[in-house]
Amino acid sequence: MQATYQALCEHGYADLTIQRIGDEFAKSKSLLYHHYDGKDELLLEFLSVILDQFDDEVPEDAGDDPAAHLDALLDYGVTATVDEDRERLTRAMTDLRAQAAHDERYHDLFAQSDEALRDHVADVIRRGVESGAFADVDPEAVADFVLVAINGARIQRVAGGTEGGIAAARAEMADYVQSQLARDADE
Amino acid sequence: MQATYQALCEHGYADLTIQRIGDEFAKSKSLLYHHYDGKDELLLEFLSVILDQFDDEVPEDAGDDPAAHLDALLDYGVTATVDEDRERLTRAMTDLRAQAAHDERYHDLFAQSDEALRDHVADVIRRGVESGAFADVDPEAVADFVLVAINGARIQRVAGGTEGGIAAARAEMADYVQSQLARDADE
Repeated sequence: MQATYQALCEHGYADLTIQRIGDEFAKSKSLLYHHYDGKDELLLEFLSVILDQFDDEVPEDAGDDPAAHLDALLDYGVTATVDEDRERLTRAMTDLRAQAAHDERYHDLFAQSDEALRDHVADVIRRGVESGAFADVDPEAVADFVLVAINGARIQRVAGGTEGGIAAARAEMADYVQSQLARDADE
Repeated sequence: MQATYQALCEHGYADLTIQRIGDEFAKSKSLLYHHYDGKDELLLEFLSVILDQFDDEVPEDAGDDPAAHLDALLDYGVTATVDEDRERLTRAMTDLRAQAAHDERYHDLFAQSDEALRDHVADVIRRGVESGAFADVDPEAVADFVLVAINGARIQRVAGGTEGGIAAARAEMADYVQSQLARDADE
C-alpha cells in the first residue's frame, strides 16, 4: 500500500503503471505481479484502506455537546490549511475521485465513504434536535449540504482554490449553523 | 477542439494520447501533430475554450432583482440533474480538474475561472446589499461559500454523489439565503 501511495503521488494516476509501483516496492516485484493484474487492482485496495482511515479520523462524539461536535466536524471537513503530507494525500485522492467519474469500482468506494460521512453528520444533528440543542431542522438536508461543502473544499484545496476562499467559506458556514441550527434562532 | 473533447470523453485523461485525438480528427493528422507537441497542449486549449463558454453561461443580471439573480446562479451551479451531454462534459472537466492538482497550467485556468464565478456572485450580493434587497452581509464571504458549494455539487454529480443529496443541499442553500441574506432577517 505504501508503494502504491508513493508511486501515485510521484506519477499521478495518468502516468502510473504497475511497473512504477513495483519500483517503490521493497520486496520482490514478482510477488506484486503475482497478486495483482494491474494498477487499478492495487489502487482500489489502496483507496479502500485510505477511505477506512478517513472514516476513523472523523471527529467522534464531543461528550454531550452536539454544537461542539458539529463544529469539530466542520473544522475537519472544511479546512483551508493542512500539513504537507495531508495535502499530498488530498492530491492523490483527487486523482482517484476523477476516476470515479469513469469507473464504477472507484465510484462505489467514494459513494460509500461520502454516505458514511453524511450519515455521521446527520446523526449529530439529529441528536442535537432531539436534545433541544438545535432548532427543529431536517438533519438529512443539513447533512447533504455539509457534505457538498466538504467535497467542494477538498477539491479547491488542491485544484484551483485559495486558502482565504476556503477559510471564508468555513466562517460563513459557522454563521449558517448559528442562524439555522442554534436553538435561540427558532425561539 | 471537438476531436479533443470526443477523445477525452472516450478515453479519459489517463488513457488519452495525441494519437487518439488524431483518430477523432477529420482533417489530416499531420496538421494536428504540426501544431501541437502533446496531449496537454491540446487539452489546455480545449479547457480554456470550455471555461470561457462556462463564463458566458453564468446567468446574467435578472433585471433589478438581486434575489432572483442569486437564485438563478444557485440553480445554475448547484444542480442535481443535467442532460447527458452536460454530464459527459462534467466528467471530462473532473478529469482535467484532477490534473490541476499536479500541473500549474491546469491549476491556473481553473483558478481564474473559479475566481470569475466567485466575483460574479459577490457582485450580485454587493448590489443587493447596496440596494437594500439583502441584509448587510459580507458579499465576499458569501460568494466564497457559494463557490465551495458549486464545486462540491460539480464533483458529486459525477463522482460519488446522489441526485437526492445534491437536490437537498440546494434546498438547504435556499434556507441559508433566506435566513442570512433576506432583508427581513436583519430587521
